[in-house]
Amino acid sequence: MAAPGRLIALEGVDGCGKSTHAHGLADALGALCTAEPGATALGARLRALVLDPELPAISPRAEALLMAADRAEHVAEVVSPALDAGRWVVADRFSASTLAYQGYGRRLDLTVLGALVAWAAAGVTPDLTVLLDVPLDVARRRLGAQRADRLEGLGADFHERVRAGYLEMAAADPAWVVVDGTGDEGDVAALVLAAVTERLGTPSGAS
Amino acid sequence: MAAPGRLIALEGVDGCGKSTHAHGLADALGALCTAEPGATALGARLRALVLDPELPAISPRAEALLMAADRAEHVAEVVSPALDAGRWVVADRFSASTLAYQGYGRRLDLTVLGALVAWAAAGVTPDLTVLLDVPLDVARRRLGAQRADRLEGLGADFHERVRAGYLEMAAADPAWVVVDGTGDEGDVAALVLAAVTERLGTPSGAS
Repeated sequence: MAAPGRLIALEGVDGCGKSTHAHGLADALGALCTAEPGATALGARLRALVLDPELPAISPRAEALLMAADRAEHVAEVVSPALDAGRWVVADRFSASTLAYQGYGRRLDLTVLGALVAWAAAGVTPDLTVLLDVPLDVARRRLGAQRADRLEGLGADFHERVRAGYLEMAAADPAWVVVDGTGDEGDVAALVLAAVTERLGTPSGAS
Repeated sequence: MAAPGRLIALEGVDGCGKSTHAHGLADALGALCTAEPGATALGARLRALVLDPELPAISPRAEALLMAADRAEHVAEVVSPALDAGRWVVADRFSASTLAYQGYGRRLDLTVLGALVAWAAAGVTPDLTVLLDVPLDVARRRLGAQRADRLEGLGADFHERVRAGYLEMAAADPAWVVVDGTGDEGDVAALVLAAVTERLGTPSGAS
């Protein structure tokens, strides 16, 4: 029987460097790299739907439920089978994203959302969540003018609430670690890898 | 200020006659007639997604969450504004459909699903739910061979569990009424209207 797999989630605001570091971390660990939303055929369709400019604004509860549906399918099709097979998995966003964006950001009730995302993920929780924390002006610069403008459409302090929410979740849960994401890419990558191996070791067989 | 509106849900297995009687009842009451899934632009896209034969089978939790997302949008855009304006609303399916199909049918936990659908509907519950009960052989005959075949794909006793689930919910909740849906269309329509007006009266201004 395979040794149990491990799930590592990378979280943070858009522009924090999650995607880059999720790929780098997965390469270093020989882990499966996956991302939400959109990792499954259903998820890709849901992601397109949520971003479709032709649809009217989606209500906050419906948005949270769509994100949870994407996660339920992601867990059922991708994450759980990999963990069951003993693989390590690095997820670019997981349940905490719903709490940060739809909870802290859109102000939906955190207790209800917590139960919702736990059920959607069929009880699968990250062994470690790495929060890549960057000030919002750094995130905006990295995203470039066009994408930053789109984010501004969500309201001046929406992203401040999301960032503060992430920091609050990290402070309350020993299975989180905060990594300062403002440095050079190579330095941040080393911090992320060190944080993970210090907490979880390395997969058997990984270099 | 307008008198409060009323929400009447019609429920039952596919082929029970819900859609026909939802329209007839709404006409008789001067009520808004609406249906799930698919009453909003988002819902129409979700309905197409769930029925898309090119997508792999959707996991039960993701399916339940998509149905809940459809309902959340339906309530936010259509049902709540109508009720707030004092209108009566007749819904062809509402929260009980998720409990019947994803709970009793697909065997997801009923307590968790109950909390999920209540939250999705932002606490909006029908003032009366009318269960149009028909034996499954009657429903199959009405649907015709082609659609009946598609339903059979869900498993021989899936629909028996759905029907039994509906009857169990109706027996446990005084805000439900069971109408025998096997008779002639006109007779059933009269039974439905009588059940509704006996419990809820008629909207002020309705004939």
